Amino acid sequence: MEATSLTEDRLVQAIAGIVASTARGKKLRLGIGDDAAAWKAARSAESVITTDALVENVHFLTDAMDASDVGWRALASNLSDIAAMGARPVLATVALGVPRSAQEGWILDCYRGMAELAKRTGVAIAGGDIVRAPALFVSMTVVGEVRPSNRKTRAGARPGDVFAVTGRLGASRAGVELLMDRPDLAADPAFAAAVAAYRRPHARLREGLRLGGSTNVHAMMDISDGLSTDLRRMCAASGVGAVVHADQIPLAADAAAFAAKTRRDPMRYGLGGGEDFELLVAIAARAFRAVAAGFERSFKRPLYAVGTATANTNVVLHDASGTRVLEPTGWESLA
Amino acid sequence: MEATSLTEDRLVQAIAGIVASTARGKKLRLGIGDDAAAWKAARSAESVITTDALVENVHFLTDAMDASDVGWRALASNLSDIAAMGARPVLATVALGVPRSAQEGWILDCYRGMAELAKRTGVAIAGGDIVRAPALFVSMTVVGEVRPSNRKTRAGARPGDVFAVTGRLGASRAGVELLMDRPDLAADPAFAAAVAAYRRPHARLREGLRLGGSTNVHAMMDISDGLSTDLRRMCAASGVGAVVHADQIPLAADAAAFAAKTRRDPMRYGLGGGEDFELLVAIAARAFRAVAAGFERSFKRPLYAVGTATANTNVVLHDASGTRVLEPTGWESLA
Repeated sequence: MEATSLTEDRLVQAIAGIVASTARGKKLRLGIGDDAAAWKAARSAESVITTDALVENVHFLTDAMDASDVGWRALASNLSDIAAMGARPVLATVALGVPRSAQEGWILDCYRGMAELAKRTGVAIAGGDIVRAPALFVSMTVVGEVRPSNRKTRAGARPGDVFAVTGRLGASRAGVELLMDRPDLAADPAFAAAVAAYRRPHARLREGLRLGGSTNVHAMMDISDGLSTDLRRMCAASGVGAVVHADQIPLAADAAAFAAKTRRDPMRYGLGGGEDFELLVAIAARAFRAVAAGFERSFKRPLYAVGTATANTNVVLHDASGTRVLEPTGWESLA
Repeated sequence: MEATSLTEDRLVQAIAGIVASTARGKKLRLGIGDDAAAWKAARSAESVITTDALVENVHFLTDAMDASDVGWRALASNLSDIAAMGARPVLATVALGVPRSAQEGWILDCYRGMAELAKRTGVAIAGGDIVRAPALFVSMTVVGEVRPSNRKTRAGARPGDVFAVTGRLGASRAGVELLMDRPDLAADPAFAAAVAAYRRPHARLREGLRLGGSTNVHAMMDISDGLSTDLRRMCAASGVGAVVHADQIPLAADAAAFAAKTRRDPMRYGLGGGEDFELLVAIAARAFRAVAAGFERSFKRPLYAVGTATANTNVVLHDASGTRVLEPTGWESLA
């Protein structure tokens, strides 16, 4: 089918077919095809909303990801923000920018990837817009719900709290660097997890719900731009500082192997690698062991303590060579 | 300030300052600066959500609109979808794509224009994302609320209904064509209304609320792509046809004058001109006079009948030369 034969109405119809399954059994009262979608928010819940956009050649490379990966990833990055609030996702809208050269097949595959993750996470794709643009972009908005007492922000960390992360870091960054710099390694099973982490990341929705339910979790956010960058944001919002212990930062195995193979600094991945979509939490020190034990029972992996909140506002890294300012080395979206 | 000195955190802080006034006194529980924003939906209401994106050189021209106009227009086009549901807007999120060449001042002015319209319409700007992109884009999502019994869709028109529009058509299209083709006329007071209609359109929120409240209004949508295109959509969704009377289509005075001056077909504006953001409604025939009289009392202008819904599914135009198929001549977003 020629790209030039696209008409919005016909395309919207094809998309509606793909996303229909995401809305089945959901509380959506009106889905794709009208001026707006409609739903009924749960009475006891607060609603939350987040927007994240991905742009071709900035956030994704059509050489390194296929269309369905792009759709999956756009939704995952928004779901991660919902997870960070301790909320449950309800519905999503999509604005898709497509250049003239885009094939209808690409657009539909993008929606298929999005719908696949939406079904797994209980999200109804409720509506959107498709527009011409000089480069592909996918801008998504996700609405979620949270019991008001469970909602977490970045702003609650207190001096003495333990900073912890919900999983190993750096796989996604290792994955994208591998695809860009060492495509010869892309099919190596040793790095399959890193490539998958980049192409089809998972938001920590269940982890966010569980941690949101604990009053000992004082602050929560997702690590989308790298621990060194995002921890600074949590500290700034909370009015605290941090001491981070380099040897406690849990590096993804693939990231460590890729660093070794390419002689890069492993901390490039541990501190600067974003988009693993792990959560960063600040937990009351006296409760940390109990929270971590419960977490491990539920998720079969540790909750990793990486540092401690301090009363001064310095954010520092402690390693074998001493203590120094932790510079933000993560993703800077306007760099 | 150099564009290269932009950092997301600093920019978000400046934006938060601009949009803070939009959230004042609103039911927002958490605004810009966290992973997501939070609010409490009204218990008796249904929530509605819509997304619309504007792209530089596709939907707006930085030569013809300044940054604040772009922000205003992006919000207006989303508010128009909310109006079309019979709903009241509550909050908005923004994903802004900015090229490297964009100045910080442009970005902040874009938010200022958006905030100006947001304040006038009671919308809290609640959050968003700023990303690098090869060309400017503004993707907005607006959430609104509506009493379930008042919500209208495109799908309720019945044979015999009167199709009507809430105001004169074509000013916005005349405005953009004037700015592009006849910049010499841009400062002519005779066309000031057309230029303003293009740069700073108004969504018909009060009109939508009023018409949404009438059980005699069977279907409603906004005319964002032109009457000929959008009426076809309403007919298709409702399973009806239409006879449109060319001499009843209310043409904006500036559009008529511009058509005369440039010897263009006035129907180019009346049938093909979108983004005046007037509403298209289908009203029970026996109630039309009463609904129109109430509308005129409230808004000091007529509700214009333009045609009638038919039981067959043909959409035709009737004029002095006879009756023929009404071809969609409006905006085609993927053309």
